[in-house]
Amino acid sequence: MNTIKIKFDRLRRDIEELAKIGADKKGGISRPALSLPDLEARKWLKSRIEEAGLIYRQDGAGNIFGRLLGKSSQVVMAGSHLDTVINGGRYDGSIGVLAALECLRKIKEEKLSLNKTIEVASFTDEEGNLVGDFLGSRAFTGKLQKENLKNALTQFGYPLEEVLSRAGLSIESLWRASEERPEVVAFLELHIEQGPVLEEEGVPIGLVSSIAGKRYYQATFVGKAGQAGSTPLELRQDAFIGLSDFALRATQLVAKKYYGNTLTIGRVLLKPGSFSTIPGEADFSLDLRSQESAQLKEMEEEILILAKEVASTRGLSFYSRLADSTEPVIIPQSMLERLRILCQNLGYDYHLLPSGAGHDAQILSSICPIGMIFIPSIDGLSHTPEEEINLEDLEKAANLLLQALISLASD
Amino acid sequence: MNTIKIKFDRLRRDIEELAKIGADKKGGISRPALSLPDLEARKWLKSRIEEAGLIYRQDGAGNIFGRLLGKSSQVVMAGSHLDTVINGGRYDGSIGVLAALECLRKIKEEKLSLNKTIEVASFTDEEGNLVGDFLGSRAFTGKLQKENLKNALTQFGYPLEEVLSRAGLSIESLWRASEERPEVVAFLELHIEQGPVLEEEGVPIGLVSSIAGKRYYQATFVGKAGQAGSTPLELRQDAFIGLSDFALRATQLVAKKYYGNTLTIGRVLLKPGSFSTIPGEADFSLDLRSQESAQLKEMEEEILILAKEVASTRGLSFYSRLADSTEPVIIPQSMLERLRILCQNLGYDYHLLPSGAGHDAQILSSICPIGMIFIPSIDGLSHTPEEEINLEDLEKAANLLLQALISLASD
Repeated sequence: MNTIKIKFDRLRRDIEELAKIGADKKGGISRPALSLPDLEARKWLKSRIEEAGLIYRQDGAGNIFGRLLGKSSQVVMAGSHLDTVINGGRYDGSIGVLAALECLRKIKEEKLSLNKTIEVASFTDEEGNLVGDFLGSRAFTGKLQKENLKNALTQFGYPLEEVLSRAGLSIESLWRASEERPEVVAFLELHIEQGPVLEEEGVPIGLVSSIAGKRYYQATFVGKAGQAGSTPLELRQDAFIGLSDFALRATQLVAKKYYGNTLTIGRVLLKPGSFSTIPGEADFSLDLRSQESAQLKEMEEEILILAKEVASTRGLSFYSRLADSTEPVIIPQSMLERLRILCQNLGYDYHLLPSGAGHDAQILSSICPIGMIFIPSIDGLSHTPEEEINLEDLEKAANLLLQALISLASD
Repeated sequence: MNTIKIKFDRLRRDIEELAKIGADKKGGISRPALSLPDLEARKWLKSRIEEAGLIYRQDGAGNIFGRLLGKSSQVVMAGSHLDTVINGGRYDGSIGVLAALECLRKIKEEKLSLNKTIEVASFTDEEGNLVGDFLGSRAFTGKLQKENLKNALTQFGYPLEEVLSRAGLSIESLWRASEERPEVVAFLELHIEQGPVLEEEGVPIGLVSSIAGKRYYQATFVGKAGQAGSTPLELRQDAFIGLSDFALRATQLVAKKYYGNTLTIGRVLLKPGSFSTIPGEADFSLDLRSQESAQLKEMEEEILILAKEVASTRGLSFYSRLADSTEPVIIPQSMLERLRILCQNLGYDYHLLPSGAGHDAQILSSICPIGMIFIPSIDGLSHTPEEEINLEDLEKAANLLLQALISLASD
């Protein structure tokens, strides 16, 4: 193994500069895809790519690439995303792009002659603030469905077409992203864990063994609204009490029968929503995740049956709509083995773990072998201004990424 | 007993005319206090009072009165409120004002000579869209607390002072309402039940025996936000699961130990409120009602202890703030007896029942004996565009109100 290392100060300065773009009043970062701050971040990344002497390119989905030519046109790619949730943190996504950029800068400075071309990638709207997660990487891999996009509104209520046009894109141009795609032979993503496992284990590096699949439902219990004081408890069809019962029973079911999988209710809207009115409707989000396809399907079915049971025993109706779905991904054994050996060579402790969160890498897995490198999230926090990391962990992970890129591009 | 009856066609036309003011796009009525539609309704009521030859008066709280002079300046009063919740129905409040207006018109037409003066009253903001329920009747009875009003914002976020000024009112003028109050010797309120009891009993008239007291809390469970996929269920401090547990256990506690009382959670707001994030906070409204003071206090204490228990067993914190409070009221036996005898004389079936909802009459009970006449709500619905009544029930109730006013004013 060569002994080159990234210049960590340079990476750290990039992180600090980027964190100023979209800094919000609540101490976090609000840089949803194609918002003004995101457009500014894109401009900034373009200038960083060009300053590094890499070849800048933006595809029809607004995905941004910086290329370092190798002997072959086959591409080893590394990256993540620059967009954030509203009031998110500064590390989720960003460090995956910026660490890859630093690796390419270093490889270029060292004038390493590699067999394969290397690209840093920043994918559009990983967080799904427009029309569902992974718009950019789905477009890149040819996984978009046309009928879902025409006349689509973003979650902030604007026509998708109009929002895309801010970045010079259109619904038609989204299709160009996969048509013009180079031959990608491997994809690596460095990311924060967004959970508590690595911190508990006390290791700087996580090697992801699988990525959870997801079912995301928009669901509703419907009962009967009524004046809070005038309807005796035993005559109520209270949609929120139905939801509470379902939430507890469904969580218990997953904890016992589907241990290791997750169920999350992150949004609730009661209607009519007055303190003095029994809720006639309880709209909620239902997020189910599993590392294993068959189990995800079984859990999904059982949870929906449970919801109908709760509804029927409480005089309610239950409705649900599958709003988003991804399948679990197993990281190829050869990729995992390569990363393990590099960790050992570098003298870094590591831990194998599944990823509960979805990532662009998961989408890329349909076109090439992927690998994911996690670093610990302090207190397991993410999607919040309190999101934090240890910089030493990031330095190690970025050096692992550097070695992995060199190794893959040398094949 | 005299045999005069109200002119029901005239009352029905008034109801239909008023229902046009504030009719919203969702088929309901949106006429929150001091909104433009409410101001229009006030103007309309003034003209109806003056057309009827009654003496119009508005007090410093915007309460509107129409007076028919008797031999004495002591006042027998009947009324309710014209304001509505957002997207409410056409009968809640309105019929109490309009039936009383019709009674006064009829008494005037018949040139009855009564011992006491009679007034129809329409109180400001019964629904509490400004700064808590019963602003008008609280001001009228001298029950406002100055410190709560200075710099107060309405629930739509405007300064109270500014909103009051739309009707020529001010925070200072609110105090005049009780200072200038006439000597009220009785108050009657006709209202829809807003619950299912009378319809189930199959009677046209409900005589209210007591009115529930209320404790309204704004409360929060605080846990820890986190990425939905990355935090195993057993490591979560999910504020919504805490709320679900509390909602079920608290409802069961009330149903078993405090049978006949109510607990309602009508509003829930999860933070950060993303489908892919474990809720770190669950804000909710908690509405407790009882017909009996000691029981209300005991239930309130036990429910708050339960919330803290749920929080502590689930690694959460619990915070609560008492936002509104009214005490239960027992209707005086003499008033109830008078109304029962009148029902019997009129040949109307009736049913005695407690009122779970609060009413202006409850506030008036601090200054004079009160009586309340309910009519059935179809399907028990209220605070919704589907609010409906049988017109024959209203006609009977209005005739009972007419006889009760004559009887009380003859004392």
